Amino acid sequence: MNLNFNTKVERWGLYEVRVPGKTDGNPFADYEIRAVFSGAHERKDVIGFYDGDGEYVVRFMPSYEGEYTFSISGSFSEHKYSGNFEAIAPEANNNGYVQVSNTYHFQYADGKPYYPLGTTCYAWVHQDEQLQEQTLNTLKINAFNKIRFCIFPKHYDYNFADPVTFPYEGTPCDISDLNRHTMALYTERKSGNSWDFKRFNPQHFKNIDKRIEQLMKMGIEADLILFHPYDRWGFDGMGADEDDFYVKYVLARYSAYRNVWWSLANEYDYVKTKTIDDWERIAKVICDNDVYNRLRSIHNGPQFYDFTKPWITHCSCQGTDRYKSVEYTDDIRKKYNKPVVWDEILYEGNINLGWGNITGEELVRRFWEAAMRGGYPGHGETLLQTIDEAVDSSILWWSHGGKLHGESPSRIAFLSKILAEIPDGQGLRFMPEYWDAVVGTIDSADDKGKDVNDYYLFYFSFLRPLYRNLYFDEDSEFQVDLIDTWNMTISDQGVFKGHFTIITGGKPYMAIRVRRLP
Amino acid sequence: MNLNFNTKVERWGLYEVRVPGKTDGNPFADYEIRAVFSGAHERKDVIGFYDGDGEYVVRFMPSYEGEYTFSISGSFSEHKYSGNFEAIAPEANNNGYVQVSNTYHFQYADGKPYYPLGTTCYAWVHQDEQLQEQTLNTLKINAFNKIRFCIFPKHYDYNFADPVTFPYEGTPCDISDLNRHTMALYTERKSGNSWDFKRFNPQHFKNIDKRIEQLMKMGIEADLILFHPYDRWGFDGMGADEDDFYVKYVLARYSAYRNVWWSLANEYDYVKTKTIDDWERIAKVICDNDVYNRLRSIHNGPQFYDFTKPWITHCSCQGTDRYKSVEYTDDIRKKYNKPVVWDEILYEGNINLGWGNITGEELVRRFWEAAMRGGYPGHGETLLQTIDEAVDSSILWWSHGGKLHGESPSRIAFLSKILAEIPDGQGLRFMPEYWDAVVGTIDSADDKGKDVNDYYLFYFSFLRPLYRNLYFDEDSEFQVDLIDTWNMTISDQGVFKGHFTIITGGKPYMAIRVRRLP
Repeated sequence: MNLNFNTKVERWGLYEVRVPGKTDGNPFADYEIRAVFSGAHERKDVIGFYDGDGEYVVRFMPSYEGEYTFSISGSFSEHKYSGNFEAIAPEANNNGYVQVSNTYHFQYADGKPYYPLGTTCYAWVHQDEQLQEQTLNTLKINAFNKIRFCIFPKHYDYNFADPVTFPYEGTPCDISDLNRHTMALYTERKSGNSWDFKRFNPQHFKNIDKRIEQLMKMGIEADLILFHPYDRWGFDGMGADEDDFYVKYVLARYSAYRNVWWSLANEYDYVKTKTIDDWERIAKVICDNDVYNRLRSIHNGPQFYDFTKPWITHCSCQGTDRYKSVEYTDDIRKKYNKPVVWDEILYEGNINLGWGNITGEELVRRFWEAAMRGGYPGHGETLLQTIDEAVDSSILWWSHGGKLHGESPSRIAFLSKILAEIPDGQGLRFMPEYWDAVVGTIDSADDKGKDVNDYYLFYFSFLRPLYRNLYFDEDSEFQVDLIDTWNMTISDQGVFKGHFTIITGGKPYMAIRVRRLP
Repeated sequence: MNLNFNTKVERWGLYEVRVPGKTDGNPFADYEIRAVFSGAHERKDVIGFYDGDGEYVVRFMPSYEGEYTFSISGSFSEHKYSGNFEAIAPEANNNGYVQVSNTYHFQYADGKPYYPLGTTCYAWVHQDEQLQEQTLNTLKINAFNKIRFCIFPKHYDYNFADPVTFPYEGTPCDISDLNRHTMALYTERKSGNSWDFKRFNPQHFKNIDKRIEQLMKMGIEADLILFHPYDRWGFDGMGADEDDFYVKYVLARYSAYRNVWWSLANEYDYVKTKTIDDWERIAKVICDNDVYNRLRSIHNGPQFYDFTKPWITHCSCQGTDRYKSVEYTDDIRKKYNKPVVWDEILYEGNINLGWGNITGEELVRRFWEAAMRGGYPGHGETLLQTIDEAVDSSILWWSHGGKLHGESPSRIAFLSKILAEIPDGQGLRFMPEYWDAVVGTIDSADDKGKDVNDYYLFYFSFLRPLYRNLYFDEDSEFQVDLIDTWNMTISDQGVFKGHFTIITGGKPYMAIRVRRLP
């Protein structure tokens, strides 16, 4: 049976086939749907999923342009569905999926460099429609090109409201008597929940479909968090079968979106109900079922996961020391030989808790420190507008989304422009030769000596020299720019050679960009 | 033969006997002078020294009140000199020498707590008279109670002028052709010096006598640096005999001053002409000849000295990481079981070099971080007033003394007042129970549990909560003060019990002081 479906899709776009199927019993668990997609350069056998209301869905991302055929099979229906379509050239803002490149960096499938400068809104897809739309509008006017968020809802300080939808059929526990003192929040509150972990709530997941697609169109990667410990409903404490059932459902729904990354957990080591064996088993489910090999990692609390595991594509790091975090980027690169993405390096904010009350200056400083070392920092904001907001109803970007109020986002956009101007597009590496400035240079394959360095970005961080003496060699000429990373100015200092002095002005957060002239 | 000498001296004061003696040959090397001082509670056999112009000197500090006698002997003269005097009660500002107390802390001989908050002016005693007097005047109006400085002159960036006096007879190298590019400064420049390392220049040492005494009267400890690597004259590269000869001379002159501490070196590990065995030999010379057992340590460059050595009374630390230094205080206390004194934690300044260009805010932050952990931070200032000063003639407090221009000294004075109010006077220890504030509490002998804590000083450092929830127990009442460590205000928040909230205001550098009411 041939369906009436779209005949064209962009390369790296989402191709979806939606077909009717059986509704008796539990369609999520009792039936399966699969599809084989074939083109001149690839053949992919993918799993589909039940989307409620008698509809079954398969999704596919073509990696090439050209003609494709597909055929759908499985116990969901007595019918065999098949069809064909054409994958056409991508539009200008579609650069394909993101993959690891040059060991420590990333690029889009079309070769364009991708320098992740992400943000975090853990529970934004669990807020009301108006707030979700506001979050998207905020993302539109900022430069973040990745966002981390959770599929499961969140229970934590400043996050006591129930989500707009739950992922499963059932009823949540009542929290009318919740003790809101910070010290009491970590108490387990799982009695009173009643869920069927084999029956998803399609509304919950359809909303996430929509949000991922909107992010994709905005050029923003969706770093999907599969599990987390901030829970009063029991989603962090299901059995292995239920976990795997959930993960396969998520894979079937989302892996065809080119902008999806898999984050197995936020703060995996605070999920006390799972062991390393559990995480490894879940990783295997992903590897076995994600035909696109989307980027995969797992985010830590007090202790990094063992990022040497072969399924991990990049280090997803939370700082483990409030003083020093991104400053370890180079060590982490060397240890794991993978890109270093910093998801949590304290947030611009002013809340009661120390991970969420640094200044914009300090967060931007951390962004530059990470970037100069060839790492990729992440943003979050926990900024109460008044002391009266210090309650359950606060809207904090870090979790709820909404508006940004902080001083860091515009500076992060400025940094993204500086990074876009790195020659060769292969990212930066740290130069240990300089002890009192953080100096990034082109992370070329040949990093044997200074001679290959045509580009130096000196970042002075919290140091504030009035002037800086520089010397590279006697003969080369260098174009020098003075960059004020806080006030977002770039000022041309002219061309220099031999020993020279740049007046940096005695303020913190200055940088000097030095480019060798041909 | 009885001399005409003072008949009274304060307990812990300096008693000096000056007698004529032989002048033929080399009086510094060819003759010796010793003296025995005896009172009801002590008997001390001390070495004296030749002071030029045919004068020999012995110095003594009485540790008790009461009658003393002395007799002088040695090859310096055919005469035997003897006499007696009375050690009388100390004046109000004389609390005696400083000694280690309660393992990690210090107190004066009379039991008054001493919380070192030092500064550094390496070469202030080598500057002209007017500048030295200005330094003393600056110290008078500030709260520093220790100063580090060198006996030998200093050659380094911003320090190219010859000292007003040299320690030895001879002539220095010429530096009219010195290459002043920073990169060239570490070149050895020792040719052209001509010194007699067995003939001291008494003028050089007499000036230091005077300065130590002036500091003593101001209640400021003199942390005397015996050796250092910033040298173009060869004083860092003498032989073992010459080193020992110098150290004994210094001991004979200065150990009777109650405010003297011995710092064997600044950045010992940059003194490439000496080995650990040399430092240990020098330490033995000090231990064998300093009858007062003055405080002794040795300051590092890249690597701490082995502070477990029994001759070391306290850790004298330079931070080895520009991001984190004093934050390791607790680890260092545990490792060495001795007081932790931070001599160098980057300086308030704006010079070309990264150890000398942090803001006042950052230096004060480091002071509080150290102090909350029961360590003792040190100040320095390298603040150019104009870009034109970035030359040889700059007057920078860190080396030359003079005036202070920075923002940290007044805040350090404020901190000294807060420390003076710690109950029991035995200093602070860090409370690891709190992860997102640096909490100091009384370093009582019984530190087994929270129950002994009647005093908590929460320092938020660069974190800036808008408010802070606190809870200690249900029943106790606590007096709470909000401290703005930068604006130097203390505001009484009232009495609280159980769960309570303090509005901290959302600025960095705030502290909350909590005192349990009886």
